[in-house]
Amino acid sequence: MKTILVVGIGTGSAEHLTIAAIEALNRADVLFVPDKGIGKGELADVRREIIARFVRQSDPRQIGYAVPRRDAANPDYGRGVAEWHMALAEIFGLLISDVPQGGTGAFLVWGDPGLYDSTLRILEHVSEPIAVEVIPGITAIQALTAAHGIALNRIGEPVLITPGRQLAAVETDTVVMLDGRMAFLDADPDLDIFWGAYLGTAQQILVAGRLGDVRDQIVVMRAEARERHGWIMDTYLLRKPE
Amino acid sequence: MKTILVVGIGTGSAEHLTIAAIEALNRADVLFVPDKGIGKGELADVRREIIARFVRQSDPRQIGYAVPRRDAANPDYGRGVAEWHMALAEIFGLLISDVPQGGTGAFLVWGDPGLYDSTLRILEHVSEPIAVEVIPGITAIQALTAAHGIALNRIGEPVLITPGRQLAAVETDTVVMLDGRMAFLDADPDLDIFWGAYLGTAQQILVAGRLGDVRDQIVVMRAEARERHGWIMDTYLLRKPE
Repeated sequence: MKTILVVGIGTGSAEHLTIAAIEALNRADVLFVPDKGIGKGELADVRREIIARFVRQSDPRQIGYAVPRRDAANPDYGRGVAEWHMALAEIFGLLISDVPQGGTGAFLVWGDPGLYDSTLRILEHVSEPIAVEVIPGITAIQALTAAHGIALNRIGEPVLITPGRQLAAVETDTVVMLDGRMAFLDADPDLDIFWGAYLGTAQQILVAGRLGDVRDQIVVMRAEARERHGWIMDTYLLRKPE
Repeated sequence: MKTILVVGIGTGSAEHLTIAAIEALNRADVLFVPDKGIGKGELADVRREIIARFVRQSDPRQIGYAVPRRDAANPDYGRGVAEWHMALAEIFGLLISDVPQGGTGAFLVWGDPGLYDSTLRILEHVSEPIAVEVIPGITAIQALTAAHGIALNRIGEPVLITPGRQLAAVETDTVVMLDGRMAFLDADPDLDIFWGAYLGTAQQILVAGRLGDVRDQIVVMRAEARERHGWIMDTYLLRKPE
C-alpha cells in the first residue's frame, strides 16, 4: 500500500515547521505542491522555501497541481463544499497514482491538518487504498495568541472556535476563522478583539482593543493589505472585557 | 531590560519542537527547568532530552525549580488558582533575577503557552520589568486529532474547547482538557468519543468509539496507565455521530 503523509506546516513562517514535519517531508518520495490556481503566489513561495531549506535531498520530486476554486455562489453551502471536495478527490487520485508502489507521498497543509482544512476528508474519497498519517502543525490560533502575547482561554473557562458565517452573540470567548465577510462588524462593540493577519510571516499585522474603537481601523488595514498581497488570511479572538 | 521567552514545546514528543522553538532555546542565556515537585519524572526527562538534543551549546545554563502544588481542596476554584499563581510569581521572580541584565531567559511550556497554561499570567505578576515573547507549540488537541487521523471540526461547524469541570450537554463538538474527574462519565452514551493520553509520546494510548461502548475501557486503561506512570495527561473530543 502507499502511504500519504498529511503534514501541517504552520501558518506562513518556515520557522513553524516541527522536527516531525521535517522528518516527514524527508521520508516522502513525492511532494505534492499546489502551485497553480488559488495556491499560487506568496503562499506557494513559503512551501518552496520550506522544501528548499529542510528537504535534504538536493532535488526532491515535486508534483505541482492546481487547486480548483470552490463555487462560493452556490446557495447550498454544504453542497458547494461537497462538489469541491469531489473535484479535488479526482486530482488527488491522479497525484497519488504517481507515487511508487509501497512508496510515500506528502501533502503540505497550512496550519494543522485537523483545523478547517479539507485534505483528510478529500483523501477519504480517493479510490486507491492508502494509509494516511497526520503530522500536526501550528495553527493560526496559536500564532495569533503568541503574537499578541496572550492566553487563548481565561482561567478555567471554555473557548469556542467558529467559522465567520456561524458567529453568533459572543457569550463564550470566541476565535473566528475563515471569515471573508468580516462578521465582527455585527458583533457587540463593547467586546475586546485581538485580530491578526498573515500571522507568522514578515507581513504580520496585529490590532487589539475595544471592538467599537478599532473596528474601522481593521476594515481599512484589511482592505489595503488584501489589495497589496492579492490575498488575506486573518483570524481573531472576541471576548467580553475582564 | 531582560527578555523572557515562553516556548511551547509540544505535548511530549521532542519531535513536536518547531524550528522557532529550537532557535529560542538557543537564544536564551538561561533555561528554566521544573525538576522538582509536580514537574519531576518522565515530564522533566522530555525537557532534558529536548535541551540535550537541540541546544547547541554543550553545557547550557539550566536553573531547576520546584513547582508548588495547587490547593485543589480550596472550595473557591478561582481563589485557589490565584494563590497558586502568586506563589509561582515569587519563584519566577527569583529565577528571573538570575538572568544577566539585557539577557534572555526561557521557560519550556508543555503544549502551547496560550492554551490552559499559566506561565503568561504568572509573568504578569513578576515585579521586575521584562519583555515577554511567546513561541507557539503543538497542543494536545492537534496531537489528538493527528493520532486519530481525524479533522477536529465538521465542515463549516464550530468546536468548543472546555475544561472537564465545565463540560455541559454536548450540542457543539467539544474537546475536553484538564479533566481529572472523567467528566465523560456523565455525558450522553450515544456521543462518539476520540480519547488519547500521553499524546505524542511512545506511551500514547488511543480509544475511539461510541461513548457508551468504550467508556469502561477508558476508565480501566486510564487507571492502569496512571498507576504505571505516576501521572496522566489525557484529552478527548466528544461529538454527536454523523
